[in-house]
Amino acid sequence: MPVIEDDVAGSDVGRVLAFSDGVFAIAITILVLNLEVPAGLSPPELVTALRDLWPELFSAALSFVVIGRFWLSHHGVLDHVVVADRRLLSLNTLVLAPLVLVPFVTQLLADYGQETVVVAYYSATVAALALALLALWLCAVRPPRSDGTVDRNELLSRSLGIGTSAAAFLVAIPVAVLSPQAAMLCWLLALTPTQLLVRRRAPSDAKPADQAG
Amino acid sequence: MPVIEDDVAGSDVGRVLAFSDGVFAIAITILVLNLEVPAGLSPPELVTALRDLWPELFSAALSFVVIGRFWLSHHGVLDHVVVADRRLLSLNTLVLAPLVLVPFVTQLLADYGQETVVVAYYSATVAALALALLALWLCAVRPPRSDGTVDRNELLSRSLGIGTSAAAFLVAIPVAVLSPQAAMLCWLLALTPTQLLVRRRAPSDAKPADQAG
Amino acid sequence: MPVIEDDVAGSDVGRVLAFSDGVFAIAITILVLNLEVPAGLSPPELVTALRDLWPELFSAALSFVVIGRFWLSHHGVLDHVVVADRRLLSLNTLVLAPLVLVPFVTQLLADYGQETVVVAYYSATVAALALALLALWLCAVRPPRSDGTVDRNELLSRSLGIGTSAAAFLVAIPVAVLSPQAAMLCWLLALTPTQLLVRRRAPSDAKPADQAG
Amino acid sequence: MPVIEDDVAGSDVGRVLAFSDGVFAIAITILVLNLEVPAGLSPPELVTALRDLWPELFSAALSFVVIGRFWLSHHGVLDHVVVADRRLLSLNTLVLAPLVLVPFVTQLLADYGQETVVVAYYSATVAALALALLALWLCAVRPPRSDGTVDRNELLSRSLGIGTSAAAFLVAIPVAVLSPQAAMLCWLLALTPTQLLVRRRAPSDAKPADQAG
Repeated sequence: MPVIEDDVAGSDVGRVLAFSDGVFAIAITILVLNLEVPAGLSPPELVTALRDLWPELFSAALSFVVIGRFWLSHHGVLDHVVVADRRLLSLNTLVLAPLVLVPFVTQLLADYGQETVVVAYYSATVAALALALLALWLCAVRPPRSDGTVDRNELLSRSLGIGTSAAAFLVAIPVAVLSPQAAMLCWLLALTPTQLLVRRRAPSDAKPADQAG
Repeated sequence: MPVIEDDVAGSDVGRVLAFSDGVFAIAITILVLNLEVPAGLSPPELVTALRDLWPELFSAALSFVVIGRFWLSHHGVLDHVVVADRRLLSLNTLVLAPLVLVPFVTQLLADYGQETVVVAYYSATVAALALALLALWLCAVRPPRSDGTVDRNELLSRSLGIGTSAAAFLVAIPVAVLSPQAAMLCWLLALTPTQLLVRRRAPSDAKPADQAG
Repeated sequence: MPVIEDDVAGSDVGRVLAFSDGVFAIAITILVLNLEVPAGLSPPELVTALRDLWPELFSAALSFVVIGRFWLSHHGVLDHVVVADRRLLSLNTLVLAPLVLVPFVTQLLADYGQETVVVAYYSATVAALALALLALWLCAVRPPRSDGTVDRNELLSRSLGIGTSAAAFLVAIPVAVLSPQAAMLCWLLALTPTQLLVRRRAPSDAKPADQAG
Repeated sequence: MPVIEDDVAGSDVGRVLAFSDGVFAIAITILVLNLEVPAGLSPPELVTALRDLWPELFSAALSFVVIGRFWLSHHGVLDHVVVADRRLLSLNTLVLAPLVLVPFVTQLLADYGQETVVVAYYSATVAALALALLALWLCAVRPPRSDGTVDRNELLSRSLGIGTSAAAFLVAIPVAVLSPQAAMLCWLLALTPTQLLVRRRAPSDAKPADQAG
């Protein structure tokens, strides 16, 4: 493989990452834009207003964790990509679409955390994010996009991890009809396995192992 | 060509890309900042309020696709640039000017999608974006800015693609006077051909072919 | 150490930095989003309104300095990192969590700078930021993450610097119960030593000195 | 100079640029956040509301040009920097402080463009930006920060260019007391010479010429 071609491809991936990282960074930062306390309250009113912010802080923290973990996954997903073709760029854009909706559904969840429709919207948004990321991952490991260092083990564990997240948030949608609280428990279930998703390539992985895809 | 000069130029282009990607990323993320449901609604009112958001979601999705596609085009346009001179930087800034207006006209479209003046504003903003990008592209392929790997085929197809977008959104302005709906159909027409715009350089393109420009 | 592994690791760290820099950049820019003067005031009312903005400008300037200094520290903390593993990425996310809250507590401070609860919130947010950064630093200097060029002197001075900031903002929380003004004086105390934190590696540091950790 | 040291320094400068570009990108994008038309207007009211936006569009366009040009200047100022020490980082932060205020003074100018105090505020903000950038430039060309390729000609022309901007916006402050309109004419005067500021290094500049400083 000629060095120059490699460099060019690397710079391409760099722009996808820069653009995506920008969207992730903005989405995670504006989560708290809706945290507001009106000016001019008396001290007791202020304490009450701050206490009333807990649902907003809780949903902002939840979405912070969600976006943070998906950023980590996105990081791992594109870690092996050396050529960013049009299909990869399109799928990456598909990941960003539900991502930019997260601040909106977060605010909804803060205001209406007990409502079926809101919990279902939140679940659907995160499920769409997970499904798009899964599609991006399955696209990213195929040659010539991948650098060929994804072994079968990483392929399986990351696919399972992202897939489990997607499944759990999908399941949460009908569950929310029965009980919004039970749907939230589904989320917890879904988040756990992603802990296994992003693993640094050990030096031994550097030799091309099983070709992924 | 001395390696050091090449490196310096590459880093220059890198900053243009970082700045532009930042603006694209922010513009695409704040599209949804106006999605809002007031707190304290009763469950039926909440369902109504969420249903009433569809025009906003539609126009946000439309602008997400528009910004996403123009980001892809912008990506392809600067793909071959190795030297970022003042003219290129100025034209790039000219691309960003209509881009930062997109969230505003998107909100207008959500609120007044039936109004001629609003559809005309939206069309004019996107047309300005396409025209500026076309100017940037015709500037970018000229030596010494280009790395000389743009062949006649890519030059023509990308010029036609961006030009078609520009033409369709320009045509939509007078059409909006007759019918805002017909103008929106012009948009669809305009968006289609850009699918052909961004194509990964195949390895065979790596040998300097016809000098572009 | 093989060159290719080094490169890959470097690019990993690059994404962490790009994402973090994005969050720092957004947080520092939206500090002033709440600066607002209503339209339609008479000239004397305008002058009054602008004068009434001083508490907002003061708290925005304070948080600008805080975020600016922590960005400098963050810069120094990750300066020696060549391998970004999952623990480092998680701790980095932990740094970003209090960071995104800074614009909110800044607005609180502008509106309620005399209130114990608000000064305590602000102190706690910055203390959490400093503690998370300290944990990131102690993680970052450990091999294999570090490039091994952190000498004992830098390890100590930076740990002390960030630790002092953390301690002072922690101390300010109980002090705010007695007097919000005294708590603000604690902040000044805390900010001073960070001046010593970020020091460019002199060329003599390039030879691996004492292994940090 | 050892290659490794060079690389490290380059990556340092890269982070300063990424952070600064982020702040520039956000500031230039949120200029239009205040463009708003209330929902639910009748068609004639809508046309009136859009016409009433012209002062906002004018001041947003003005600040777009100001931020765009200062970004170009900032780009040129840091073009030769290979070592980012603490003084450079601090001065760079000083450039960003007035920059983040630009969206606020832009909104003020849109609402109160006839008022002395507002025109003076706007002038002072841009003057502070120019003065900070001048200080950054005079710091950046000094070894060991500069790569030694700044010739006397570039040093003089850029210093004069940024200095002229600073002077004109400073002069506009007292002029605004007499006439806000005359102060705006000063701005035009100030903007013109920056056209000469950012010039691509010609290949002949690659040989170290007069050492700047």
